[in-house]
Amino acid sequence: MIEVARYRVIFGDCDPMRIVYYGNYFRLFEIGRAELFRRLGHPFATYIARGLYLGVIATTCRYHRPSRYDDDLVIYAAVTETRGARVTIGYEIRGPDGELRVAGSTTHAVIGEDGKPRRIPEEFRAALRGCGETPPLPPAS
Amino acid sequence: MIEVARYRVIFGDCDPMRIVYYGNYFRLFEIGRAELFRRLGHPFATYIARGLYLGVIATTCRYHRPSRYDDDLVIYAAVTETRGARVTIGYEIRGPDGELRVAGSTTHAVIGEDGKPRRIPEEFRAALRGCGETPPLPPAS
Amino acid sequence: MIEVARYRVIFGDCDPMRIVYYGNYFRLFEIGRAELFRRLGHPFATYIARGLYLGVIATTCRYHRPSRYDDDLVIYAAVTETRGARVTIGYEIRGPDGELRVAGSTTHAVIGEDGKPRRIPEEFRAALRGCGETPPLPPAS
Amino acid sequence: MIEVARYRVIFGDCDPMRIVYYGNYFRLFEIGRAELFRRLGHPFATYIARGLYLGVIATTCRYHRPSRYDDDLVIYAAVTETRGARVTIGYEIRGPDGELRVAGSTTHAVIGEDGKPRRIPEEFRAALRGCGETPPLPPAS
Repeated sequence: MIEVARYRVIFGDCDPMRIVYYGNYFRLFEIGRAELFRRLGHPFATYIARGLYLGVIATTCRYHRPSRYDDDLVIYAAVTETRGARVTIGYEIRGPDGELRVAGSTTHAVIGEDGKPRRIPEEFRAALRGCGETPPLPPAS
Repeated sequence: MIEVARYRVIFGDCDPMRIVYYGNYFRLFEIGRAELFRRLGHPFATYIARGLYLGVIATTCRYHRPSRYDDDLVIYAAVTETRGARVTIGYEIRGPDGELRVAGSTTHAVIGEDGKPRRIPEEFRAALRGCGETPPLPPAS
Repeated sequence: MIEVARYRVIFGDCDPMRIVYYGNYFRLFEIGRAELFRRLGHPFATYIARGLYLGVIATTCRYHRPSRYDDDLVIYAAVTETRGARVTIGYEIRGPDGELRVAGSTTHAVIGEDGKPRRIPEEFRAALRGCGETPPLPPAS
Repeated sequence: MIEVARYRVIFGDCDPMRIVYYGNYFRLFEIGRAELFRRLGHPFATYIARGLYLGVIATTCRYHRPSRYDDDLVIYAAVTETRGARVTIGYEIRGPDGELRVAGSTTHAVIGEDGKPRRIPEEFRAALRGCGETPPLPPAS
């Protein structure tokens, strides 16, 4: 996993337990994958301009320790698996001291404006391949 | 103002002060105007299907008393002004006992898929006219 | 699973794909478990008044079909497992025609104001036991 | 107004019009005031640790131009008025090219854990006084 972004917790992220609301970590995961692909040289915005989106098929999250107001969180992300038309991304959210707060994953398929699945564009597949976390993929045949 | 919807506060709406986060009332205002226009026989979904949206130009909110987890809020709404291509809607959010929690407004213009202003469709204008809170409008010339 | 609530999708729930944002279903899961326990005669608010919260340890979600603006969703929930101090709740979100949109789960522990684990209160445990979805539990010894 | 933070728009901020949802700018205003006071040497977290919160009494927002996915927004903020126990903060959200997107304000009172008003702590009042945007205040008598 590589560090891809930092995020400062606001009041609007927290709940009456005074910790980050469990559903709000999925916003941090989105920040994580956007910055991961920007670093790989493939910002999502260029795909969206072509009508291609990274739809979410599944997600998981484990909450290890709570995060609180004003915590300066560090977001880690990595491509953990590519199989056929699916890509799985893993995330860790850590406190500024490195303490693990939550760990999770999102599995995606490329879809078009109509919500129908599309092939992963070859240059995007190449970016995944170039990503150290994943084994080389056979060329799309 | 007429009662248009009820809303049960969840953890995800609240903040570390253990009250509804100030920015989340704008979701309740959206519920209010959607249900107001549904009652007037003009649900927004039929306009969206035609590529017309009710863009927001301005909003105000005054916070009178806090709302807390599990409060069963009542949403009131009314068209308070129509002027040219602009429509203003007023809202009150009250506790189950009628206590005023927040009062606010949103001012809108009809816009198309391209974000450009559109004339208010005549049948929508007629619905506004039929709304008891507003004085009759002259016919669009 | 039993139907516990309905939820009308608003603009604020959706994203630029014009479908409900993946992270916002966790709000619907929260509505589901709150209403499930209200029906069991154990609304969370009574526990919160005693300083007890249902902290989230883990969550999963599978996205089967997208939900769109103004969809009148139906929320189903059930206690699917209780093991020691942990409770798992399952959810299904369906369209008004019964079509499965997403299915997920949340696993919880009872925690106090200090975030530390607490024993599941006996009357709450009894409510879980009375819930048809779960096998009888041995009495807390 | 001074630049206090930048914010990259995510999918979770936007709505089916493919622009930032009107209610989500209030999260950006919160980021703005937190960073404004951090720069003034008075981060809110130190007051919260003492049980003091900056409750919101009123807010306004005018939407000049829409913001879109991946926009790298710039948040400007300033204390625009202090009157008795109330503080008003103004905000501008601009695109990376300086284009005004939204402008707004929030008016606050200091409140305690119980939600009751508190005097503005003298050192916080001094920070407001030191803020170039506000005229000198008479010493609290």
